[in-house]
Amino acid sequence: MATIRLMGIDPGSRITGYGIINIEGLYKIHVASGCIRTTNSSLFPERLKTIFEKLTVIIRIHKPTEVAVERVFVHHRNPDSALKLGQARGAALCAVVMAGLPISEYAPRAVKQAVVGDGAADKTQVNHMIQLLLHLSEAPPTDAADALAVAICHGHTRQTRQRLMEAITLVGR
Amino acid sequence: MATIRLMGIDPGSRITGYGIINIEGLYKIHVASGCIRTTNSSLFPERLKTIFEKLTVIIRIHKPTEVAVERVFVHHRNPDSALKLGQARGAALCAVVMAGLPISEYAPRAVKQAVVGDGAADKTQVNHMIQLLLHLSEAPPTDAADALAVAICHGHTRQTRQRLMEAITLVGR
Repeated sequence: MATIRLMGIDPGSRITGYGIINIEGLYKIHVASGCIRTTNSSLFPERLKTIFEKLTVIIRIHKPTEVAVERVFVHHRNPDSALKLGQARGAALCAVVMAGLPISEYAPRAVKQAVVGDGAADKTQVNHMIQLLLHLSEAPPTDAADALAVAICHGHTRQTRQRLMEAITLVGR
Repeated sequence: MATIRLMGIDPGSRITGYGIINIEGLYKIHVASGCIRTTNSSLFPERLKTIFEKLTVIIRIHKPTEVAVERVFVHHRNPDSALKLGQARGAALCAVVMAGLPISEYAPRAVKQAVVGDGAADKTQVNHMIQLLLHLSEAPPTDAADALAVAICHGHTRQTRQRLMEAITLVGR
Protein backbone atom coordinates (compact mmCIF):
# COMPACT_ATOMS: atom_id res chain seq x y z
CA MET A 1 0.00 0.00 0.00
CA ALA A 2 1.34 3.41 -0.98
CA THR A 3 2.43 5.76 1.79
CA ILE A 4 1.19 9.33 1.56
CA ARG A 5 3.08 12.02 3.47
CA LEU A 6 0.99 15.01 4.57
CA MET A 7 1.91 18.24 6.31
CA GLY A 8 -0.30 20.47 8.46
CA ILE A 9 0.62 24.06 9.30
CA ASP A 10 -0.81 26.36 11.96
CA PRO A 11 0.59 29.83 11.11
CA GLY A 12 0.90 32.54 13.74
CA SER A 13 2.82 35.81 14.03
CA ARG A 14 4.68 34.55 17.14
CA ILE A 15 4.54 30.75 16.83
CA THR A 16 3.92 28.68 13.71
CA GLY A 17 3.16 25.01 14.37
CA TYR A 18 3.88 22.26 11.85
CA GLY A 19 3.18 18.54 11.80
CA ILE A 20 4.05 15.81 9.30
CA ILE A 21 2.38 12.40 9.19
CA ASN A 22 2.44 9.33 6.97
CA ILE A 23 -0.84 7.77 5.92
CA GLU A 24 -0.47 4.02 5.34
CA GLY A 25 -3.89 2.58 4.73
CA LEU A 26 -5.80 3.00 7.98
CA TYR A 27 -2.64 3.85 9.92
CA LYS A 28 -1.42 7.33 10.66
CA ILE A 29 2.23 7.59 11.64
CA HIS A 30 3.86 10.63 13.23
CA VAL A 31 6.93 11.72 11.25
CA ALA A 32 7.83 15.11 12.71
CA SER A 33 6.25 18.09 14.42
CA GLY A 34 7.26 21.23 16.21
CA CYS A 35 7.01 24.98 16.52
CA ILE A 36 8.76 27.77 14.64
CA ARG A 37 9.24 30.63 17.09
CA THR A 38 9.53 34.06 15.51
CA THR A 39 10.20 36.05 18.63
CA ASN A 40 13.88 36.02 17.58
CA SER A 41 13.47 39.53 16.19
CA SER A 42 11.40 42.58 17.01
CA LEU A 43 11.44 43.43 13.28
CA PHE A 44 8.31 42.07 11.65
CA PRO A 45 9.85 41.38 8.21
CA GLU A 46 12.58 39.30 9.92
CA ARG A 47 9.86 37.19 11.55
CA LEU A 48 8.28 36.54 8.14
CA LYS A 49 11.71 35.52 6.83
CA THR A 50 12.09 33.02 9.71
CA ILE A 51 8.69 31.44 8.93
CA PHE A 52 9.42 31.26 5.18
CA GLU A 53 12.96 29.92 5.55
CA LYS A 54 12.27 27.35 8.27
CA LEU A 55 9.17 25.96 6.53
CA THR A 56 11.14 25.75 3.26
CA VAL A 57 13.84 23.69 5.04
CA ILE A 58 11.27 21.45 6.80
CA ILE A 59 9.51 20.77 3.46
CA ARG A 60 12.87 20.02 1.82
CA ILE A 61 13.84 17.55 4.59
CA HIS A 62 10.55 15.69 5.02
CA LYS A 63 9.17 15.97 1.46
CA PRO A 64 5.41 16.04 2.12
CA THR A 65 3.33 15.85 -1.07
CA GLU A 66 0.27 17.77 0.17
CA VAL A 67 -0.26 20.50 2.76
CA ALA A 68 -3.29 21.48 4.83
CA VAL A 69 -4.05 24.61 6.89
CA GLU A 70 -6.98 25.68 9.01
CA ARG A 71 -9.32 28.23 7.47
CA VAL A 72 -9.25 31.41 9.55
CA PHE A 73 -12.40 33.07 10.83
CA VAL A 74 -11.64 36.59 11.89
CA HIS A 75 -15.08 37.98 12.79
CA HIS A 76 -14.25 38.26 16.47
CA ARG A 77 -10.66 39.45 16.02
CA ASN A 78 -9.53 43.01 15.96
CA PRO A 79 -8.32 44.18 12.52
CA ASP A 80 -4.75 44.75 13.75
CA SER A 81 -4.27 41.17 14.95
CA ALA A 82 -5.97 39.93 11.75
CA LEU A 83 -3.38 41.90 9.72
CA LYS A 84 -0.49 40.39 11.71
CA LEU A 85 -1.88 36.86 11.45
CA GLY A 86 -2.46 37.47 7.72
CA GLN A 87 1.18 38.44 7.18
CA ALA A 88 2.45 35.31 8.99
CA ARG A 89 -0.02 33.19 7.03
CA GLY A 90 1.10 34.84 3.77
CA ALA A 91 4.73 33.93 4.50
CA ALA A 92 3.80 30.33 5.40
CA LEU A 93 1.59 29.80 2.33
CA CYS A 94 4.32 31.33 0.13
CA ALA A 95 6.83 28.72 1.35
CA VAL A 96 4.33 25.96 0.45
CA VAL A 97 3.37 27.24 -3.03
CA MET A 98 7.02 28.03 -3.87
CA ALA A 99 7.81 24.38 -3.05
CA GLY A 100 5.14 23.47 -5.64
CA LEU A 101 2.81 21.77 -3.14
CA PRO A 102 -1.01 21.92 -3.21
CA ILE A 103 -2.77 23.47 -0.18
CA SER A 104 -6.13 22.41 1.24
CA GLU A 105 -8.05 24.50 3.76
CA TYR A 106 -10.35 23.14 6.45
CA ALA A 107 -12.77 24.89 8.79
CA PRO A 108 -11.86 24.53 12.50
CA ARG A 109 -15.07 22.54 13.08
CA ALA A 110 -14.12 20.03 10.37
CA VAL A 111 -10.68 19.54 11.96
CA LYS A 112 -12.16 18.90 15.42
CA GLN A 113 -14.78 16.58 13.91
CA ALA A 114 -12.05 14.56 12.15
CA VAL A 115 -9.82 14.25 15.22
CA VAL A 116 -12.24 14.07 18.17
CA GLY A 117 -15.49 13.21 16.40
CA ASP A 118 -17.05 16.40 17.78
CA GLY A 119 -16.90 19.74 15.92
CA ALA A 120 -17.23 21.63 19.20
CA ALA A 121 -14.34 19.87 21.00
CA ASP A 122 -11.93 22.03 22.99
CA LYS A 123 -8.13 22.32 22.61
CA THR A 124 -7.41 19.85 25.44
CA GLN A 125 -9.54 17.16 23.80
CA VAL A 126 -7.87 17.72 20.42
CA ASN A 127 -4.43 17.54 22.00
CA HIS A 128 -5.30 14.36 23.90
CA MET A 129 -6.67 12.64 20.76
CA ILE A 130 -3.59 13.62 18.72
CA GLN A 131 -1.41 11.95 21.34
CA LEU A 132 -3.59 8.79 21.25
CA LEU A 133 -4.01 8.60 17.45
CA LEU A 134 -0.32 9.09 16.72
CA HIS A 135 0.95 7.02 19.69
CA LEU A 136 3.01 9.89 21.07
CA SER A 137 4.70 9.36 24.43
CA GLU A 138 3.71 12.85 25.55
CA ALA A 139 1.30 15.61 24.55
CA PRO A 140 2.75 17.80 21.77
CA PRO A 141 2.90 21.61 22.18
CA THR A 142 -0.48 23.21 21.33
CA ASP A 143 0.60 24.75 17.99
CA ALA A 144 2.22 21.50 16.83
CA ALA A 145 -0.91 19.57 17.91
CA ASP A 146 -3.12 21.95 15.89
CA ALA A 147 -0.88 21.42 12.84
CA LEU A 148 -1.00 17.61 13.27
CA ALA A 149 -4.80 17.84 13.67
CA VAL A 150 -5.29 19.59 10.32
CA ALA A 151 -2.93 17.07 8.66
CA ILE A 152 -5.06 14.20 10.06
CA CYS A 153 -8.24 15.96 8.89
CA HIS A 154 -6.78 16.22 5.39
CA GLY A 155 -5.82 12.53 5.53
CA HIS A 156 -9.42 11.53 6.39
CA THR A 157 -10.89 13.74 3.70
CA ARG A 158 -8.63 12.50 0.92
CA GLN A 159 -9.25 8.85 1.95
CA THR A 160 -13.03 9.36 1.90
CA ARG A 161 -12.73 11.07 -1.50
CA GLN A 162 -10.58 8.21 -2.80
CA ARG A 163 -13.05 5.56 -1.61
CA LEU A 164 -15.93 7.47 -3.22
CA MET A 165 -13.99 7.65 -6.49
CA GLU A 166 -13.33 3.87 -6.32
CA ALA A 167 -17.02 3.20 -5.63
CA ILE A 168 -18.04 5.39 -8.56
CA THR A 169 -15.58 3.54 -10.81
CA LEU A 170 -16.97 0.16 -9.68
CA VAL A 171 -20.57 1.28 -10.28
CA GLY A 172 -19.58 2.59 -13.70
CA ARG A 173 -18.22 -0.80 -14.82
CA MET B 1 27.76 61.56 -6.77
CA ALA B 2 26.62 58.05 -5.95
CA THR B 3 23.30 56.88 -7.32
CA ILE B 4 20.95 55.15 -4.89
CA ARG B 5 18.24 52.90 -6.27
CA LEU B 6 15.10 52.62 -4.12
CA MET B 7 11.97 50.56 -4.48
CA GLY B 8 8.50 51.27 -3.11
CA ILE B 9 5.82 48.59 -2.83
CA ASP B 10 2.08 48.99 -2.26
CA PRO B 11 0.85 45.44 -1.51
CA GLY B 12 -2.76 44.44 -2.09
CA SER B 13 -4.64 41.14 -2.41
CA ARG B 14 -5.83 42.05 -5.95
CA ILE B 15 -3.23 44.58 -7.16
CA THR B 16 0.30 45.15 -5.83
CA GLY B 17 1.93 48.35 -7.05
CA TYR B 18 5.69 48.77 -7.34
CA GLY B 19 7.92 51.70 -8.23
CA ILE B 20 11.68 52.01 -8.62
CA ILE B 21 13.55 55.32 -8.63
CA ASN B 22 17.15 56.48 -8.71
CA ILE B 23 18.24 59.19 -6.28
CA GLU B 24 21.10 61.24 -7.73
CA GLY B 25 21.78 64.14 -5.38
CA LEU B 26 18.67 66.31 -5.53
CA TYR B 27 17.31 64.52 -8.58
CA LYS B 28 14.84 61.69 -8.53
CA ILE B 29 14.69 59.62 -11.70
CA HIS B 30 11.94 57.17 -12.58
CA VAL B 31 13.37 53.73 -13.41
CA ALA B 32 10.34 51.45 -13.56
CA SER B 33 6.87 51.11 -12.10
CA GLY B 34 3.76 49.05 -12.59
CA CYS B 35 1.13 46.79 -11.11
CA ILE B 36 1.15 43.08 -10.35
CA ARG B 37 -2.38 41.81 -10.88
CA THR B 38 -3.27 38.69 -8.93
CA THR B 39 -6.74 38.16 -10.32
CA ASN B 40 -5.17 35.43 -12.53
CA SER B 41 -6.42 32.81 -10.11
CA SER B 42 -9.37 32.37 -7.81
CA LEU B 43 -7.10 30.32 -5.52
CA PHE B 44 -5.64 32.56 -2.83
CA PRO B 45 -2.30 30.70 -2.42
CA GLU B 46 -1.75 31.08 -6.19
CA ARG B 47 -2.20 34.84 -5.82
CA LEU B 48 0.46 34.92 -3.10
CA LYS B 49 2.77 32.95 -5.38
CA THR B 50 2.25 35.52 -8.16
CA ILE B 51 3.13 38.41 -5.81
CA PHE B 52 6.22 36.63 -4.45
CA GLU B 53 7.50 35.44 -7.84
CA LYS B 54 6.92 38.69 -9.74
CA LEU B 55 8.47 40.88 -7.03
CA THR B 56 11.46 38.51 -6.88
CA VAL B 57 11.96 38.90 -10.65
CA ILE B 58 11.52 42.71 -10.53
CA ILE B 59 14.09 42.96 -7.70
CA ARG B 60 16.50 40.73 -9.65
CA ILE B 61 16.15 42.87 -12.80
CA HIS B 62 16.31 46.36 -11.28
CA LYS B 63 18.52 45.64 -8.25
CA PRO B 64 17.21 48.21 -5.74
CA THR B 65 19.31 48.40 -2.55
CA GLU B 66 16.53 49.50 -0.17
CA VAL B 67 12.78 49.00 -0.08
CA ALA B 68 9.98 51.06 1.48
CA VAL B 69 6.33 50.22 2.19
CA GLU B 70 3.46 52.17 3.69
CA ARG B 71 2.53 51.31 7.25
CA VAL B 72 -1.00 49.92 7.33
CA PHE B 73 -3.66 51.28 9.65
CA VAL B 74 -6.50 48.85 9.92
CA HIS B 75 -8.75 50.44 12.56
CA HIS B 76 -11.52 51.16 10.08
CA ARG B 77 -11.19 47.92 8.10
CA ASN B 78 -13.16 44.77 8.67
CA PRO B 79 -11.04 41.88 10.04
CA ASP B 80 -11.61 39.74 6.94
CA SER B 81 -10.17 42.33 4.54
CA ALA B 82 -7.33 42.98 7.03
CA LEU B 83 -6.50 39.24 6.93
CA LYS B 84 -6.47 39.23 3.11
CA LEU B 85 -4.33 42.36 2.92
CA GLY B 86 -2.03 40.86 5.57
CA GLN B 87 -1.50 37.71 3.49
CA ALA B 88 -0.64 39.74 0.37
CA ARG B 89 1.67 41.94 2.42
CA GLY B 90 3.31 38.86 3.96
CA ALA B 91 4.07 37.48 0.48
CA ALA B 92 5.47 40.85 -0.70
CA LEU B 93 7.65 41.39 2.40
CA CYS B 94 8.92 37.79 2.10
CA ALA B 95 10.13 38.47 -1.45
CA VAL B 96 12.03 41.53 -0.16
CA VAL B 97 13.66 39.91 2.89
CA MET B 98 14.54 36.76 0.93
CA ALA B 99 16.37 39.06 -1.54
CA GLY B 100 18.33 40.33 1.48
CA LEU B 101 17.04 43.92 1.24
CA PRO B 102 16.21 46.18 4.21
CA ILE B 103 12.60 47.41 4.52
CA SER B 104 11.52 50.80 5.89
CA GLU B 105 7.92 51.57 6.81
CA TYR B 106 6.27 54.99 6.59
CA ALA B 107 2.93 56.24 7.85
CA PRO B 108 0.55 57.35 5.04
CA ARG B 109 0.71 60.94 6.38
CA ALA B 110 4.51 60.96 6.11
CA VAL B 111 4.32 59.77 2.51
CA LYS B 112 1.82 62.49 1.53
CA GLN B 113 3.86 65.09 3.38
CA ALA B 114 7.02 64.05 1.50
CA VAL B 115 5.37 64.08 -1.93
CA VAL B 116 2.75 66.86 -1.76
CA GLY B 117 3.97 68.82 1.29
CA ASP B 118 0.62 68.15 2.97
CA GLY B 119 -0.05 65.11 5.15
CA ALA B 120 -3.77 65.31 4.40
CA ALA B 121 -3.42 65.40 0.59
CA ASP B 122 -5.78 63.21 -1.45
CA LYS B 123 -4.89 60.48 -3.97
CA THR B 124 -5.34 62.80 -6.98
CA GLN B 125 -2.84 65.30 -5.58
CA VAL B 126 -0.32 62.53 -4.81
CA ASN B 127 -0.69 61.11 -8.31
CA HIS B 128 -0.29 64.57 -9.90
CA MET B 129 2.85 65.36 -7.89
CA ILE B 130 4.40 61.96 -8.73
CA GLN B 131 3.92 62.76 -12.41
CA LEU B 132 5.54 66.21 -11.96
CA LEU B 133 8.43 65.12 -9.71
CA LEU B 134 9.43 62.17 -11.90
CA HIS B 135 8.75 63.95 -15.25
CA LEU B 136 6.34 61.27 -16.39
CA SER B 137 4.48 61.88 -19.66
CA GLU B 138 1.25 60.59 -18.14
CA ALA B 139 -0.22 59.85 -14.72
CA PRO B 140 0.78 56.37 -13.49
CA PRO B 141 -1.87 53.87 -12.33
CA THR B 142 -2.93 54.57 -8.71
CA ASP B 143 -1.15 51.56 -7.16
CA ALA B 144 2.09 52.27 -9.04
CA ALA B 145 1.85 55.95 -7.99
CA ASP B 146 1.42 54.94 -4.33
CA ALA B 147 4.50 52.72 -4.60
CA LEU B 148 6.54 55.51 -6.23
CA ALA B 149 5.32 57.90 -3.50
CA VAL B 150 6.63 55.72 -0.66
CA ALA B 151 9.95 55.29 -2.54
CA ILE B 152 10.24 59.11 -2.80
CA CYS B 153 9.37 59.46 0.90
CA HIS B 154 12.14 57.01 1.76
CA GLY B 155 14.54 58.94 -0.49
CA HIS B 156 13.77 62.20 1.38
CA THR B 157 14.11 60.60 4.78
CA ARG B 158 17.45 58.92 4.09
CA GLN B 159 18.83 62.17 2.58
CA THR B 160 17.78 64.17 5.64
CA ARG B 161 19.32 61.52 7.90
CA GLN B 162 22.53 61.57 5.86
CA ARG B 163 22.79 65.39 6.06
CA LEU B 164 22.22 65.28 9.81
CA MET B 165 24.95 62.67 10.17
CA GLU B 166 27.30 64.87 8.11
CA ALA B 167 26.46 67.91 10.26
CA ILE B 168 27.09 65.92 13.45
CA THR B 169 30.44 64.75 12.07
CA LEU B 170 31.42 68.36 11.20
CA VAL B 171 30.43 69.62 14.66
CA GLY B 172 32.35 66.75 16.22
CA ARG B 173 35.63 67.75 14.51
